Amino acid sequence: MTKKKAVVLLSGGLDSTACMSLAHGQGYTLYALSFDYGQKHRRELQSAAEIAQFYNSAEHRVIKLDYVGGSALTDTGIDVPDFQETEGIPVTYVPARNILFLSYALGYGEVVCADSIFIGVNAIDYSGYPDCRPEFIQAFQKVIQVGTKSGVEGRPIEIFTPLIHLTKGDIVRLAVENGAPLHLTNSCYKGEEKACGRCDSCRLRLRGFAEAGVEDPIQYHLTD
Amino acid sequence: MTKKKAVVLLSGGLDSTACMSLAHGQGYTLYALSFDYGQKHRRELQSAAEIAQFYNSAEHRVIKLDYVGGSALTDTGIDVPDFQETEGIPVTYVPARNILFLSYALGYGEVVCADSIFIGVNAIDYSGYPDCRPEFIQAFQKVIQVGTKSGVEGRPIEIFTPLIHLTKGDIVRLAVENGAPLHLTNSCYKGEEKACGRCDSCRLRLRGFAEAGVEDPIQYHLTD
Repeated sequence: MTKKKAVVLLSGGLDSTACMSLAHGQGYTLYALSFDYGQKHRRELQSAAEIAQFYNSAEHRVIKLDYVGGSALTDTGIDVPDFQETEGIPVTYVPARNILFLSYALGYGEVVCADSIFIGVNAIDYSGYPDCRPEFIQAFQKVIQVGTKSGVEGRPIEIFTPLIHLTKGDIVRLAVENGAPLHLTNSCYKGEEKACGRCDSCRLRLRGFAEAGVEDPIQYHLTD
Repeated sequence: MTKKKAVVLLSGGLDSTACMSLAHGQGYTLYALSFDYGQKHRRELQSAAEIAQFYNSAEHRVIKLDYVGGSALTDTGIDVPDFQETEGIPVTYVPARNILFLSYALGYGEVVCADSIFIGVNAIDYSGYPDCRPEFIQAFQKVIQVGTKSGVEGRPIEIFTPLIHLTKGDIVRLAVENGAPLHLTNSCYKGEEKACGRCDSCRLRLRGFAEAGVEDPIQYHLTD
C-alpha cells in the first residue's frame, strides 16, 4: 500500500515541530514546507532544515515570499514588542500570512498529490490572530473543496490542525512524548543567536515548558 | 471624502484590463497587482505595467512567485496545447493559482487598507477551472470574513468579480464601451512577440472579438 503523503508547514518552532512529530508518527511521507518572508527571525529556517532532515522528509521546500508587509515581524520600522497581555490583534499579525501559507501548501500538495496538510495553528495562546482559529481553517477547507482540482475530483486535501485546542504546556508534553527534536527548534521573534526570552513567542514557549514541567533545551539570554 | 481603494489583479490580458476599466470608472484609487510566476507568457507583465500606467494607478506591484508547478503554463516539460473543447480540468490549470493570487491581493489590500479586490475570473469560458467559479469566490470571501483583521474588525475587504457571468463577447463590448486600452493587452499563453492565435486563450479572445463585432487591435501570427 502506498503511504499517505502530508505537506507539513514547518517554521522550525515548537508547534510546527510537534506537528511534524505527529504526522511522522501517523506514518505519512513528509513534505516539509517553510517560508522565507523576510522575517527578522530567519534563524528558524535553519532549524526547519535540521528538523526536516531529522524526520527524513521526502522533500523540504523553502518558498521565498516576495512581499508581506505591515507587521512588526517583517517591517524594519516596527519593533518587535516585549510580551504584553492585550486584547485584539497584535502588531505581530502579518496580513494574510496563514492564508498565504496554506495556499502554497495547497499548491504544493496538489503537485505532489498529498492527502493532507498539517499546520500547527493554535487558538488558545494566539487567540488574537484571526487566522489561527477553527472558523478560519473550516473556511479554508471549503475553499479547497470548491476551488481546487483535488476538491472538485472528490478527494480534497484535508487540513489537520492537531494543536488547535492544546495549551502550550500540552504541546510541549506531546512533543516530548513523541521524541520531537526540541533542541533543534527556534521560536524567538528576534532571531538572534540565543532566544531573547522576552518576546511574545519566547514567553509563551517558556510558559509552556514550565507548565509541562520540562526544561527547555535551547539557550536564552534571559531566564527570569 | 476619501476615495475608496481597490486592489485589481492585473495580468495584462483582456479580462483583467476590463476589470481595471470598471474599477476606474467606479472612482476607486487603483492598486494594480501582477505576478511573475514563471509563466511562459511573461510578455503580459509588460502589458500589465503599461495598463497600470494608463490608468494612473497609485501603485503597480509585481510579486515574484517562487514556485507554482504542475501546469502547462509553467512547466517547461508540458507543452501549451492548441485549443480543444474538453470536459474536465485543462492541463493549463495551475494548482491553487487564484487562491494564491487572492491571498496576495488580500495581504496587499490589508496593508494599503483597501475596500475591495477586483478579479477578472470568468465562469463561462473557463468553466473547467474550479477556481474561476462563484462557489470558490464565495468560499474565499468567507475566509476573509473570519480569517483577516479587516474581516474580524467588521470591514472585510470585498471581492468583486464583475466579469464572472459575462461571455467573452460581453467582456469585449464592456471594455470597448469603457475605453479600455485593448491595444496594450496581451493574452497569448505562448508569450511570443505576436499572439499565436491557436492556444486556448487566443481562441477565446478572438471568438470574443468576433462575437462583439469588434476588430482585435493586437497582432497575430495566424488569423484563420
